[in-house]
Amino acid sequence: MKTFNRVNEKDLAYFSELAPGRVFSGEAISTDYDHDEMTEYGHYMPEAVIQALSTEDVSAVLKYCNERNIAVTPRGSGTGLCGGCVAIHGGVVLSTEKMKRVLEVDRRNMTATVEPGVLLMEFPKALEGTGLFYPPDPGEKTATMGGNAMTNAGGMRAVRYGVTRDYVLGMEVVLADGSVINLGGKNVKNSSGYSLIDLMIGSEGTLGFLTKLTVKLIPEPKVNLSLLMPFDDLDACIGAVPAVLGCGCEPTAVEFMEREVIACAETYLGKQFPDTSADAYLLVRLDGPSAEALKPAMDTLTELALSIGAKDVLLADTDERKESIWNARGAFLEAIKGSTSTMDECDVVVPRDVIPAFVRKSVEIGKRVGVRVCSFGHAGDGNLHIYACRDDMEESAWKAACAQVMDELYAAAREMGGEVSGEHGIGHAKRDFLCESVGEVQMNLMCGIKAAFDPNGILNPGKVV
Amino acid sequence: MKTFNRVNEKDLAYFSELAPGRVFSGEAISTDYDHDEMTEYGHYMPEAVIQALSTEDVSAVLKYCNERNIAVTPRGSGTGLCGGCVAIHGGVVLSTEKMKRVLEVDRRNMTATVEPGVLLMEFPKALEGTGLFYPPDPGEKTATMGGNAMTNAGGMRAVRYGVTRDYVLGMEVVLADGSVINLGGKNVKNSSGYSLIDLMIGSEGTLGFLTKLTVKLIPEPKVNLSLLMPFDDLDACIGAVPAVLGCGCEPTAVEFMEREVIACAETYLGKQFPDTSADAYLLVRLDGPSAEALKPAMDTLTELALSIGAKDVLLADTDERKESIWNARGAFLEAIKGSTSTMDECDVVVPRDVIPAFVRKSVEIGKRVGVRVCSFGHAGDGNLHIYACRDDMEESAWKAACAQVMDELYAAAREMGGEVSGEHGIGHAKRDFLCESVGEVQMNLMCGIKAAFDPNGILNPGKVV
Repeated sequence: MKTFNRVNEKDLAYFSELAPGRVFSGEAISTDYDHDEMTEYGHYMPEAVIQALSTEDVSAVLKYCNERNIAVTPRGSGTGLCGGCVAIHGGVVLSTEKMKRVLEVDRRNMTATVEPGVLLMEFPKALEGTGLFYPPDPGEKTATMGGNAMTNAGGMRAVRYGVTRDYVLGMEVVLADGSVINLGGKNVKNSSGYSLIDLMIGSEGTLGFLTKLTVKLIPEPKVNLSLLMPFDDLDACIGAVPAVLGCGCEPTAVEFMEREVIACAETYLGKQFPDTSADAYLLVRLDGPSAEALKPAMDTLTELALSIGAKDVLLADTDERKESIWNARGAFLEAIKGSTSTMDECDVVVPRDVIPAFVRKSVEIGKRVGVRVCSFGHAGDGNLHIYACRDDMEESAWKAACAQVMDELYAAAREMGGEVSGEHGIGHAKRDFLCESVGEVQMNLMCGIKAAFDPNGILNPGKVV
Repeated sequence: MKTFNRVNEKDLAYFSELAPGRVFSGEAISTDYDHDEMTEYGHYMPEAVIQALSTEDVSAVLKYCNERNIAVTPRGSGTGLCGGCVAIHGGVVLSTEKMKRVLEVDRRNMTATVEPGVLLMEFPKALEGTGLFYPPDPGEKTATMGGNAMTNAGGMRAVRYGVTRDYVLGMEVVLADGSVINLGGKNVKNSSGYSLIDLMIGSEGTLGFLTKLTVKLIPEPKVNLSLLMPFDDLDACIGAVPAVLGCGCEPTAVEFMEREVIACAETYLGKQFPDTSADAYLLVRLDGPSAEALKPAMDTLTELALSIGAKDVLLADTDERKESIWNARGAFLEAIKGSTSTMDECDVVVPRDVIPAFVRKSVEIGKRVGVRVCSFGHAGDGNLHIYACRDDMEESAWKAACAQVMDELYAAAREMGGEVSGEHGIGHAKRDFLCESVGEVQMNLMCGIKAAFDPNGILNPGKVV
C-alpha cells in the first residue's frame, strides 16, 4: 500500500498564497467534507480543503502535490454514494464548489461549456429561452455536472436519451503533474485515436481533474406525458418491459416501483400516491413536439399494456398529476433513507430480461439473511437500486448480515451477466466487487492505465483501482 | 523503431497445424492483402496470412507471436481508408474473414452477438422478421462489423442514432498475450470502472483482437422519407443546417452535396440525379412509425427550408425516388475514385457551424496549390470527406502538392476546433496528423495505454500510436 506525505505548515502556506481565503485545515474544515451521501462507508477527514477557482489553481495544486507526494481527492458537491469524493488517504480535498460558471451556450452548435461545479439543478436556467435542453437526469439534482461526468451518471431519461457519457463532447483536464489537456471539443463524431475522453468519463477523478466540460444539447421536447400502469405483481410488471421498449414508441423513461417503496415515499412526502390499486407499477414517460404527435404512441402503449396484464392505464398529462407521480418516484432514495437507521446500496445493472429474477433473488436473500431489502429502479435499462436497511439491528450483526447480502447480490448479478454499477460508480466502497466482477486481467489493465496517467498515484488514491 | 522477427518455416509449420488450410505464405498470398481501399498509402505484403475461425485460433496465434516477437495485423475485409489493416511491419495478417456467424439475436434484450467478420450488408438478414434493426450505417457495406467497431465507424444515420460506439454493448477480446477478456455484456448502462470497452472501440486492433461483438438493436422505424433541398450555393445550403437540427424534427441524416460531385456520380452510375436546378443540395431523411406520424415534421422542415433560402423542397417518399437520390449519394466515394488516377482523403470532423468556412478553405487551398479538390459529407455532424485528386499530375509534383493540401487541411481543421478523423480512423497514414492535432502529452498517454495492453508492441504496430 502506497503511503503519502502529510500536509504540513509549509504546504498550507503555499496553498494559502495560491488560493487566499479558500484553504481550510484542522478544525476549520467542516465535517461535511469527511463523507458523501452514504455515511455507512465511514468518515475520513482530509488534512486540507482547497476550493479551486480556476484551471490554474488546479494545475498549481496538482503539480505541487505530485512533487510532494500528497494525496489529492477531487470533490464536487459530495452527493456520491460509494465514497468516491472522500479522502480515505487524508491529504488534500480539492473542491470544485466555487467553479460554477456556465461559460458558454453555443446555440448554433447546440453545445454548452461549463465549469465542473455547476449544479445539475442550476444548469437549466442557463438554457432558458434557447429551446435547447440537456437530457441527462440523475435523481440527485444538487450533484455537480463535473461529478456527473466523472461517474458517468445515468438518470431516468436514459432509456431514450442515453447517459452522461452520450452528452460529453469536450473536456479540459488537469493531469496529476499539473499539465492541462483538452479532449474532444464541439465535434459530435470522432475516430481520432484512443478515446481518452471516454476513458476520463466515469474515472471518478483518478486519472485527471476535470476543469471544463462541453456538453451536447438537443432541442427541447415541447410536451411530455406519463402513463402509470398498475400490475398484480412485480413479475407481470417487469415482464411487460420488453414489449414496451420494442413497440417503437420511444419511451423516455420506464421505471418500476413497488407498493412498499411507494408507502415509504408517501410517509416521507406526506402525500398520497394517486393510485392504491396494485402492488407493482410500471411508469412510462413519453416526450414529443405536441400532444397530438404523442397520441399514436399513447394509444399503442395503452392497448399494449392492457393486453399484457396491466389492470389499468392511468394517464398523467396535467402538471399536478405528473408531479404527484414523479415527486413520489424522485423521493424514493431519501424516503428509504428516512425509513431506517443506516443502509447500504447496490447499484447493479443487469440485462433487462433478468430484472424480475434479480429482484426476486434480492427478496429471497434479504429474507434468508434477515435484513429488510427494498428496491426500485430503471426497468428500461436494467439498472436496479437495491437497499439493505439496518433498521434496529445491532451493529455487529448488521455489519455481518449486510456484507452477506451485498456479497450475494453482486454474485447473483455476475451470474446473470450484470455489472457492479449502473450509474453510481465504484469509489472505494465497491472496489472489491469490481475486482471480483471483471477479474484480475482487466484490473491489471486498469492499473496500467492509472499508471500511465498518474505515475505517482496521487489522484484520488484508493478509488476504482 | 521496434524490429520484429521474420516468420520462418517453423512458425509456418506451427500456424498450419493450428489452422490447417487457412495459412498462406509467400506466393500463395493474394495481393489483396497488401493494401486497403486507399492504395495511395502503399503496398505491404505480409509474410503470412492466417484466417482465424475461432477465439481459440486467435488466442493461440497471438500467444505464439507475442513470445516469438512477430508482428500481427488484424484485418477484416480490408475496406479501410488509412492503412489500418495493412501489415506495414510485415509479419502475420490475422484475418476475420471466416469468422462470420451471427451467434445470437436476443429479441427480449434487443441485442445481437456476432463474430467480427460478419459483413455490414449481411447482418440485416439475421434480423429479418424481428422488427429490430441496427442503426449504424457506414457507406461501405462490405466492411465487417468488427472493423466498424474497431474504427468507430459512423455513417449517414449518425445524426439521429449515433455512431458504432453507441451500439457496442459487449466485446470478447483477445489480448496480445493470448488471454481472453469479456468487456461489457448485454447491459445498456455502466459505471463500473474505466470503460475499457470504449477504449477498445476505435483502437484499430492495436490494443486487442476482437473475437465477439454484442450490439444494441432498436425497433425498426416503419417508414422513412427524404427531403431534397436545392440551394443557390453551398454557404446557404450548409447555413441552413443549425435550423434543421434545432427545429425538433429529429432528422435521421443531413447530408450536403455539390453539383460537381453529383455529376461524378451521374457518370459513374449512368443515371441522372432527379434535380438539376442547383449547385448545392441539402438532403434530409426522416424516420418514423408511419407516414402520418412524419407529416408534422415534414411540414415544419419544408416551411423552414423555404424560409431560409431553399429554392424548393422535393419530397422523396417512393422507393424509386428515394433510390435515385440515395444511390447517387452512396456512390460518391467510388465515383470520385473513378474520376481520377489516384487520390488522397481527409476525413476531418469540425464543429457544425464552421462547415461552410472549412469547405471554402478546402477549395481555396486546392486552387492555390493546383490540385483538384472535391468534397461531400455529413452536414448534420460536421464530418467532411475531402478528396485531393491526382488526375494527370506527374508523380513527384503530385506527392508534393498532395502533402501540402493535406497539411493545410489538417492545420485548418485544428484551428477551427476540429479533429483528424470523424469516422475512418488513423491507421498509419494519419498518425503524424494525429500527433500534431492532440500534442505530445496526449500521445504519451496513448502510448502508455498501448504499453499496458500490449507491452511487446506486436499488435498492429505502426498504427494510431
